[in-house]
Amino acid sequence: MTASYKIASNRLLNTIHETASKFGAKGIWGPRSTETGVCRLALGDFDKGVRDWFVEETTQLGCKIKVDKIGNIFAIYPGKNDGAPTGIGSHLDTQPTGGRYDGIYGVLSGLEVLRTLKENGIVPNYPIAVVDWTNEEGARFSKSCMASTVWNGSASLEKTYAMKSITDDVPVTVEEELRRIGYLGDVEASYKVNPLACHFEIHIEQGPVLENENKKIGIVVGGQAYQWYKVTVHGKAQHTGTTPLMARSDALLTASKMMVKGNEIAKKYGGLFSVGTLNLEPAVANVIPELVTFTLDARHVQDEELAKILSDCKSEFQKIVEQEDSGKYASVEFEHIQTSNAVKFDDECISCVRDAAIELFGKDQVREIVSGAGHDSCSTSQVIPTSMIFIPSREGVSHNPEEYSTPEQVAEGFEVLLGAVLKYDAKRTK
Amino acid sequence: MTASYKIASNRLLNTIHETASKFGAKGIWGPRSTETGVCRLALGDFDKGVRDWFVEETTQLGCKIKVDKIGNIFAIYPGKNDGAPTGIGSHLDTQPTGGRYDGIYGVLSGLEVLRTLKENGIVPNYPIAVVDWTNEEGARFSKSCMASTVWNGSASLEKTYAMKSITDDVPVTVEEELRRIGYLGDVEASYKVNPLACHFEIHIEQGPVLENENKKIGIVVGGQAYQWYKVTVHGKAQHTGTTPLMARSDALLTASKMMVKGNEIAKKYGGLFSVGTLNLEPAVANVIPELVTFTLDARHVQDEELAKILSDCKSEFQKIVEQEDSGKYASVEFEHIQTSNAVKFDDECISCVRDAAIELFGKDQVREIVSGAGHDSCSTSQVIPTSMIFIPSREGVSHNPEEYSTPEQVAEGFEVLLGAVLKYDAKRTK
Repeated sequence: MTASYKIASNRLLNTIHETASKFGAKGIWGPRSTETGVCRLALGDFDKGVRDWFVEETTQLGCKIKVDKIGNIFAIYPGKNDGAPTGIGSHLDTQPTGGRYDGIYGVLSGLEVLRTLKENGIVPNYPIAVVDWTNEEGARFSKSCMASTVWNGSASLEKTYAMKSITDDVPVTVEEELRRIGYLGDVEASYKVNPLACHFEIHIEQGPVLENENKKIGIVVGGQAYQWYKVTVHGKAQHTGTTPLMARSDALLTASKMMVKGNEIAKKYGGLFSVGTLNLEPAVANVIPELVTFTLDARHVQDEELAKILSDCKSEFQKIVEQEDSGKYASVEFEHIQTSNAVKFDDECISCVRDAAIELFGKDQVREIVSGAGHDSCSTSQVIPTSMIFIPSREGVSHNPEEYSTPEQVAEGFEVLLGAVLKYDAKRTK
Repeated sequence: MTASYKIASNRLLNTIHETASKFGAKGIWGPRSTETGVCRLALGDFDKGVRDWFVEETTQLGCKIKVDKIGNIFAIYPGKNDGAPTGIGSHLDTQPTGGRYDGIYGVLSGLEVLRTLKENGIVPNYPIAVVDWTNEEGARFSKSCMASTVWNGSASLEKTYAMKSITDDVPVTVEEELRRIGYLGDVEASYKVNPLACHFEIHIEQGPVLENENKKIGIVVGGQAYQWYKVTVHGKAQHTGTTPLMARSDALLTASKMMVKGNEIAKKYGGLFSVGTLNLEPAVANVIPELVTFTLDARHVQDEELAKILSDCKSEFQKIVEQEDSGKYASVEFEHIQTSNAVKFDDECISCVRDAAIELFGKDQVREIVSGAGHDSCSTSQVIPTSMIFIPSREGVSHNPEEYSTPEQVAEGFEVLLGAVLKYDAKRTK
C-alpha cells in the first residue's frame, strides 16, 4: 500500500544526522562525522535550537503549531475533516551520553510522514499531529516522561514547574527554563483540552531481541511492569585478618548471594532482575563490610508475575540472612522506590502496525515485542489508543553514543510508521 | 613464679586510661569517662605528647633512652650484664577511629614490667628494652609497621623519610614530622647497629577466637600469610529494562558469583577470603554494570595453602566468566597488590610464653593461636627470636573506639608477659 507513494530515500536519515550535528553532537565513537552521539538536555540551548528548527520545518509544511504549558510541541498537519489529530510523537531531548536515535528517530519520522504526505499530495481524513514531548529522558530534570505525564493528567503541572535541574551548577526550575527558551506555551497541558485521537511512536528497541532474531520490525504490544527497591543489608565491620569465616557477618557476601538468587528468581518467572548501583561501608580493603545498599530493579510483562518475583526475592533474601554463615548481625530491609504497572497497547493501533509491517516485509520479518523501557507512549496509552514500532538496535546498546541502527533499518521502520498512520486515518470516522 | 613478686593491681589499667585521656581520647561509646577510643596518629601532636611522657616515665625508672633515625624509642633498663637487651615492644600510635588497647597495651605493659622490676628490686641478667615502634598502623603515613621494617632492614630509610601523610590537608613527610616533634634520633635504625636479643609483644587478639572459646591467653605461634589482589570484572552496560537475562553481560552478577565462590574456596582450605572494597560503573539504577573492581584479601596460616586458595580463585573465577549466563563480554583480570608470607615465631620465645601462661592459669585457659593481623613482631621475627601474647577482645572488635578487654584480661596478660620475659632473661647466657 505505501509502495504506491513516492518516498524520499535517505532524507529521514540525513535529517537525523543534520540535526544531530547542529544541536548537540558529542561522543565520537568512529571516524565518520556521523559517528558521534548527542547530548541535548531537556530545555537547554541545544533543545531550544532543535525545537526552533522543528517548528520552522513543520510550519513550512503547512502545520499549525500548538505549544502547551509544559512545552510539548504539537505540529498539526491539516486533514479533510476537523477532529482530534492522529498523533505521532516521541522526544528530541537525550541523555547526557545519548545517541542519535533514542526519541529523535520518532519525532523526525513523524516529520518525514508529513513531508511524504505533502510531496505526494495526500490529504489525510483527519489532522495528523507530530508531537515533541518535553523531557522524556528525565536526565536534566529527574523525572522521565515528565511532560507526557502532565498531559495525561497523572502529574501536577505546578509540581513539575517547580522541579530543579540536577545537571546545572546553579539549579534552575522547569518553569524558568521553559520561559527562557520561549516554550512556556499557553495551551492547557491536558489531553482533555488539547486531545489526540491516538498516539503512534517509532523507536529503536534499545535491546538485542530483534537483532538476535534477525527481525526487521517489532510490533510493540505493551510495556512491561517494573518496580524499584532500595535494599539495605546489615552486617558487622570486623578485621579481615583476625575474624574466622564462621564468626563473620559479611554484608557484602550476604548481598552477593542475594544478587545471584534474585537473578535465579527472575529467570524462573521469565522476568528481569538487575542491580545497577551498590554501595558499601566502610569500604576498606582489610575490613569486612558492615553495610551494603543496592538498588533492585525487577521487571515482568505481567504485573502478577512481577509481584511473584518481588515476593520471592523478599522471602529468599530473608532466608539468606538467616543462613548460619551470614552471621548473627545479618539483616535486610526493603524500601520501595517506584512501581510502574504493565502497559497494554490498543488492539486497533497494534493491528495497524502489524498489517503495515507484514505487508511490507512479510510475517517472518516481524515479531510482537514488549517494551522494556518507559516511553511517552506509556503515558498516552493511559488515556488514548496507542502503540509503538521498534527497529533493531545494534547490540541493544542505548543511552550511549554508540547507539546505532542501520540506514536500512531506519528507512524500513519509517515505512511501517507511515503505513500504520495511514491505515489508522483511513479507518477513522470521527 | 611471678606470684612471688608484688604486682601493683590496676596500675597498668590506670596508665592506659590516663594516657588515653591526655593524648587523643576520641569516640565516646559509653557513659564512663574511660569509654572512648583514641585517635593518636603517628608523629602528630598527641603522639609527641605520649612519647615525651613515655621517655620521662622510663627515665625516672633508670632507663637509658635511645631514639633511632626513624623515631623508634628504646627505653633500656639496665641488667647485671651488658648485651643486647631483651625486647618488649609495640606501638603508641592508633588508627583514626582507634581504641585504647591496640598497640598501646603492649608498650604500657612493657613499662609496667619495668616498674614491677624496680619496685621488687629485681635486676635482670641482661638489659630489658621497652620499644615504641613508630607508625605501626600505617594510617597517617600509608605503610603499616613502617619503622620496624626499617629497623629489620627490609625497608629503605630514605624512601620512608619521603613518604607523605595522607590525613593532613597539606601533606607532610615522615622526616619533617620526626624533626618537628623532636624524634629524629641519631641512632642507626638497624637491628645490626642497635640490636635486641629478642622481641616479646603483648596485644589484644582483634578477633573473637579467645572470647568464643573462653580462653584467657593466646600463645601466638606465628602470623598468617596474606595476599591482596585487585580483581577487575568486565561486562557490558545495557538497559536493565530492555535486555533479556540471556543477552546480558552483567559484571556485578559475575562478581557476586565470584565472591560467593571465593568464600567457599577459603572455607575448604581453612583460610580466609574477604572483599572490603567494590566499585562499579556506570552505577545507574537502570543500567547493567559493565565494570566491577574489587579488592581480594586472602589469608592462610600456611603459604602453600594460601597459594592453593589463590590458584583456585583464579581458575574458578575464570570458569564463572565462561558460564553462559555471564555473557559474551565477560572477562576477569587479577592485579597483584601485596604478598605477606606466613610468619613463624621462635620456639624458645613461644616456650617462655607457654610456660608462663600455663603456670599462671593452667592448660585449659590457654591456646595456641596464629595472628591474623600484621604486627611489629612480624618485622622483628625476620631477624631476631620473637613471639607474642594475645588477650581476648570483646566481640573481636578492633580499629574501633569500642575495642575492649576487661580489667582482668588486661592484668592477666601482663602477668604472662612479665613471666615470659623473666623466663627468657633467666635462660640467657649472653
